[in-house]
Amino acid sequence: MILSALLTSVGINLGLCFLFFTLYSILRKQPGNAEVYAPRLVAEGKSQQSSNFNLERLLPSAGWVTRAWRPSEAELLSTSGLDAVVFMRIFIFSARVFTFAVIVGVFILLPINYMGKQLSLDISDLPNKSLEAFTISNVDDGSNRLWIHFSAVYLFTAVVCYLLYFEYDYISSKRVSCFYSSKPHPHQFTILVRSIPASSGRSYSGTVESFFSEYYPTTYLSHWVVRRASKLQGLIKNSDKLYRRLMYLKSANHDRQRFKRDGFMGLFGPRVDLLDHYGKKLEDIEDNVRAEQSSTLGKEVGAAFVSFRTRFAAAAAIHMQQGVNPTQWVSEPAPDPEDVYWPFFSASFLKRWISNLVVVVACILLTLLFLIPVLVVQGLTHLEQLEIWFPFLKGLLRITFVSQVITGYLPSLVLQLFLYLVPHIMIILSSVQGYIAMSRIEKSACIKVLWFTIWNIFFANVLSGSALYRVEVFLEPKKIPAVLAVAVPGQATFFIAYVVTTGWTSTSSELCRLTTLVFNFVKRNICRKFDYEFEVPSLPYYSEIPRILLFGLLGIIYFFLAPLILPFLLVYYCLGYLIYRNQLLNVYEPKYETGGKLWPIVHDSMIFSLILMHVIAIGIFGLKKLPLASSLIVPLPILTLVFNSYCRRRFLPMFKSYSVESLIKKDRQEQNDPALANFHDTLATAYQDPALLHVGYSGNTASINAPLLSTAEVDARM
Amino acid sequence: MILSALLTSVGINLGLCFLFFTLYSILRKQPGNAEVYAPRLVAEGKSQQSSNFNLERLLPSAGWVTRAWRPSEAELLSTSGLDAVVFMRIFIFSARVFTFAVIVGVFILLPINYMGKQLSLDISDLPNKSLEAFTISNVDDGSNRLWIHFSAVYLFTAVVCYLLYFEYDYISSKRVSCFYSSKPHPHQFTILVRSIPASSGRSYSGTVESFFSEYYPTTYLSHWVVRRASKLQGLIKNSDKLYRRLMYLKSANHDRQRFKRDGFMGLFGPRVDLLDHYGKKLEDIEDNVRAEQSSTLGKEVGAAFVSFRTRFAAAAAIHMQQGVNPTQWVSEPAPDPEDVYWPFFSASFLKRWISNLVVVVACILLTLLFLIPVLVVQGLTHLEQLEIWFPFLKGLLRITFVSQVITGYLPSLVLQLFLYLVPHIMIILSSVQGYIAMSRIEKSACIKVLWFTIWNIFFANVLSGSALYRVEVFLEPKKIPAVLAVAVPGQATFFIAYVVTTGWTSTSSELCRLTTLVFNFVKRNICRKFDYEFEVPSLPYYSEIPRILLFGLLGIIYFFLAPLILPFLLVYYCLGYLIYRNQLLNVYEPKYETGGKLWPIVHDSMIFSLILMHVIAIGIFGLKKLPLASSLIVPLPILTLVFNSYCRRRFLPMFKSYSVESLIKKDRQEQNDPALANFHDTLATAYQDPALLHVGYSGNTASINAPLLSTAEVDARM
Repeated sequence: MILSALLTSVGINLGLCFLFFTLYSILRKQPGNAEVYAPRLVAEGKSQQSSNFNLERLLPSAGWVTRAWRPSEAELLSTSGLDAVVFMRIFIFSARVFTFAVIVGVFILLPINYMGKQLSLDISDLPNKSLEAFTISNVDDGSNRLWIHFSAVYLFTAVVCYLLYFEYDYISSKRVSCFYSSKPHPHQFTILVRSIPASSGRSYSGTVESFFSEYYPTTYLSHWVVRRASKLQGLIKNSDKLYRRLMYLKSANHDRQRFKRDGFMGLFGPRVDLLDHYGKKLEDIEDNVRAEQSSTLGKEVGAAFVSFRTRFAAAAAIHMQQGVNPTQWVSEPAPDPEDVYWPFFSASFLKRWISNLVVVVACILLTLLFLIPVLVVQGLTHLEQLEIWFPFLKGLLRITFVSQVITGYLPSLVLQLFLYLVPHIMIILSSVQGYIAMSRIEKSACIKVLWFTIWNIFFANVLSGSALYRVEVFLEPKKIPAVLAVAVPGQATFFIAYVVTTGWTSTSSELCRLTTLVFNFVKRNICRKFDYEFEVPSLPYYSEIPRILLFGLLGIIYFFLAPLILPFLLVYYCLGYLIYRNQLLNVYEPKYETGGKLWPIVHDSMIFSLILMHVIAIGIFGLKKLPLASSLIVPLPILTLVFNSYCRRRFLPMFKSYSVESLIKKDRQEQNDPALANFHDTLATAYQDPALLHVGYSGNTASINAPLLSTAEVDARM
Repeated sequence: MILSALLTSVGINLGLCFLFFTLYSILRKQPGNAEVYAPRLVAEGKSQQSSNFNLERLLPSAGWVTRAWRPSEAELLSTSGLDAVVFMRIFIFSARVFTFAVIVGVFILLPINYMGKQLSLDISDLPNKSLEAFTISNVDDGSNRLWIHFSAVYLFTAVVCYLLYFEYDYISSKRVSCFYSSKPHPHQFTILVRSIPASSGRSYSGTVESFFSEYYPTTYLSHWVVRRASKLQGLIKNSDKLYRRLMYLKSANHDRQRFKRDGFMGLFGPRVDLLDHYGKKLEDIEDNVRAEQSSTLGKEVGAAFVSFRTRFAAAAAIHMQQGVNPTQWVSEPAPDPEDVYWPFFSASFLKRWISNLVVVVACILLTLLFLIPVLVVQGLTHLEQLEIWFPFLKGLLRITFVSQVITGYLPSLVLQLFLYLVPHIMIILSSVQGYIAMSRIEKSACIKVLWFTIWNIFFANVLSGSALYRVEVFLEPKKIPAVLAVAVPGQATFFIAYVVTTGWTSTSSELCRLTTLVFNFVKRNICRKFDYEFEVPSLPYYSEIPRILLFGLLGIIYFFLAPLILPFLLVYYCLGYLIYRNQLLNVYEPKYETGGKLWPIVHDSMIFSLILMHVIAIGIFGLKKLPLASSLIVPLPILTLVFNSYCRRRFLPMFKSYSVESLIKKDRQEQNDPALANFHDTLATAYQDPALLHVGYSGNTASINAPLLSTAEVDARM
């Protein structure tokens, strides 16, 4: 790619960004779009937009930028939780790293690369200059100037490690202080016990009761055995749908729609009043639901939520092996009630273990074999090949502008569309793995998507060739540095374009939420559906974080290879900071809280990026005939790993569980609080399956929040 | 090697074994040798050998065999502890495995190998037949008979896995039942806390007291802060030496030796009475000891033994992170007081962590670079090379018997001598790593020695070449099967000889304890030293287990390659069972108990051996032009790893800690026992450094067991 092509691409994407900004600032002022651009405020009843028309509504403005910038981190924490703060810290951390990188890369390394003569690119006019002139490939072999690159690698690693340490420290202390200031949550007092051994002539409930009252006589409070409720969940879904249709018919008073023929497709048979018809149907289903609810109470699964009087007792029970057989009475921290993932509550140890194994294999296969669409995309970057495939496009492709668009923009757009599906697949895979909390499923999916992204975007583009070839490279570890050193700098231009297109444009389009906007418009104005439930979305961390981390990986790797990428990355992170802050404040509402447990993923990914950079540096200096520098780099990855292992000991335990000191301080703090006794009472029913709590619509009072049965009543019934 | 050479070697070693047996049965009856052959019985006062001379004393007998055979496992458990039982289970397990292997290998695989024509060994007389005729190399390429080998590999893996599961189950249940029947031990109630944060104006003792009485108010009992006592330990060592010399002078009444000149080397100066001289010196040292003892009490280290009222409370404290900062208040299970390793009590987290890292690196380097002596040994197996090196030996080497001895026996003897040093080096390395229990040091050394042995005996002999070459092989994982398939069968004859020489002879020589016998004889009759302390030795598991496991590895790998090795191995395991049982009953006494924690090492080593066998099988079948069999083996290592990961979940946690169920049952069992209160009192001083308990000899009453100071007194002094 030549410089002018890059500039064209940058121009297009800058234009798109401004278009998105303008669109956003206008669209968000339209009263009908409040549910798209400020669902949080709508849900909280804070959205005060007048529906009167005035001119200001049609003029773009930048007021949202300052409104997004102004709130402090403490305010963000109080409204969106620690996860959102951690998410924003990724941008802050990356912006710090790449500010340093830009200073070193653009002002020191870039001029050195440009002054090299290795590639003998004699074209004197800058616009037609190949971008390779700005990469390390252009530095003369064996030149002493490479020692500057060498020092830059060491310095950069030190700076990144320092910032990583600082950030880990900051977030872990935030996590502890959040714990201290938190209200009592059911999950702090509760553990999930699985693989409860079946004893003859006794329900699981009885077994749990006797086990915990024997071994935790002073601290055991109550328990709730999980029930097999999938059939019930299906029934309730149907009744919900029917109820909503009924409400719509009632509210709209569509007399024309109210009567319908009873027979095949509403064409034959006697005309019936739909209101009566649906009403009767709903009553039938509700009867079924009630019958199923009582039968479900008997369908116990070998898993239970066990609550304790104090946080300390619950934590102690989690950390210790309960029964003599370690595959029975397996205890783990319970998620918050709204975070529990009910549908897949597999109880058997062996079944979970096998499904875990199957998912890991499936995930590896998916990651390795996804490459076919990526290869097609790769093909698009070569104009010649495109001309051979589609000869009728020859004329079009010869136009300079079109060819520049295709080489600069199209490939990454197609890639992005393919990748859109992956997080959803990974979520499905993770949910089959047997996690019982949505937050854990999302965390696991986040790691899967991250590896998927690194393999299928970075490695697939760098090591073009068959999937088997790529795998083979990693089976011969000795050759990895040399292979990467040849391949990685060659793809620098592709990744610069990728940052500009995917990074800039997709982040700006996040602001506009185009798909939601269109969906909303269609529903409202064409389908005239008003019966949908309005729901505030939550930010899908599992798909956003890997994308942001991929850009971090690219930046770290290309820092000394092709520093031209760095300013674009810095712009990306600044844009991202502003836009996601705005979205977190207006659009997304957290459904559950992991307490910042996503940060270790970020940390590990950064360490991986550094190590990969070192491996490539070893290869590059070897290739550039500077073997001394190549071997002097070797201690760097080792030191980085030592640093990482120190961090794992110093900080990681704080993300896994709270310390005795914190737990007991928190317990003492509330010891004499009269509210605690009430809270203890609610614990007994906190973990009921929402399906069991469904009361029904027949009486038209949907008081969903009142519990149906207490544990004592359930036990009495059985 | 040809068959007759093997038979010569077998003959020599059989002879040696019988020689050792005969020697043992005579020597053990001599009254002077009771301390060598039955130190346990001597220490327990059970040795009732008359010193009257009779003829029977000079006749060999086999009574010891039945005496070693007779006691049941429960008796062995009560006299020698669970570790000894686990040690003997290795022999039982291996004997079972190789009984099956002999049946399949010798009666099915061996005839098939022998009937092959691949190597075209046309020598018709059996004695001169090369041993290679009995290996898989002799089976024709692409022959369908190889499918029998293929099935044997599958079947053997299944049998070994079944036996491994059975054994793991057996030993883990033994471990739990031993715990239930154990008396209260201090280590069950105590944890070791390290990295206690220093707080200004307060001793560590005060910090520990306030921390644990705040967070464990009901269960905390007492603590003992570790003191820096290395200077004191040195002084006490000196005083011990002096005291023993004094006692010797007194008891022997050697008037001639009693007076000595005071000056240089006892040649000049005035004659002095040594009794007075040493007496005065001893008093000086004792004064120093007392002074040092009180000053040592003030030299606190940031580590403490903290005792709790119940086993459950101690276990809960171990499993949870104590302080907010995970690098402070690091808790771990305390070893038994007699198991504590005092000299190296490094307190700082960072220091331990760095020394850990250094030891790992040192250990890897030692393992990789030890090969030079092994290479020399390798050279000895080639007669031609020996003749070139030592031309004057040419005549001697041409004698058939001599050449057979050299090729069949000498190489492995030299190897063995070199390897004698390794366990001692590994123990030193492990002790620097910062473990605080002798048993943990030994366990860590056991793993180190195991890897060292596998690498330096198995791989070094198989992949002859430079150390770098061997490492390179493992850097290209794709080539491993092919390289091993070529190299491993070629060394079959060497390893058969190795089993016969090292296995048989060294095990039999263990019976005779020749070095101890000679040492004892020299001390008694030549040096006339009677002042040495009589000490019952303990079995060095860290050097014995890796050796036994190496033979297991050889047997598993050569099972289908060269089944000729199997009968020799089976004999080895039967011999070993008998001999070690005898030694455990008569000679070795356990100093401390790990509770069978060594079994997971055995299990892992067996799994590794199986996987290695599969990898070689993949290579061999490829080499033998049966690619289908080669690829059909691939699922086998995967299945084996799945089996292993199941075992890790099912059994490994039981070897790490006891379950809540066991702990509380055990606690309840003793709850009302009045002895428990006394036991709680002893806990306060159980973990005093023995150096602080040293009372002194001046009063000639060495009541070592009475504690010097209680914690309260110590605290009062400071």
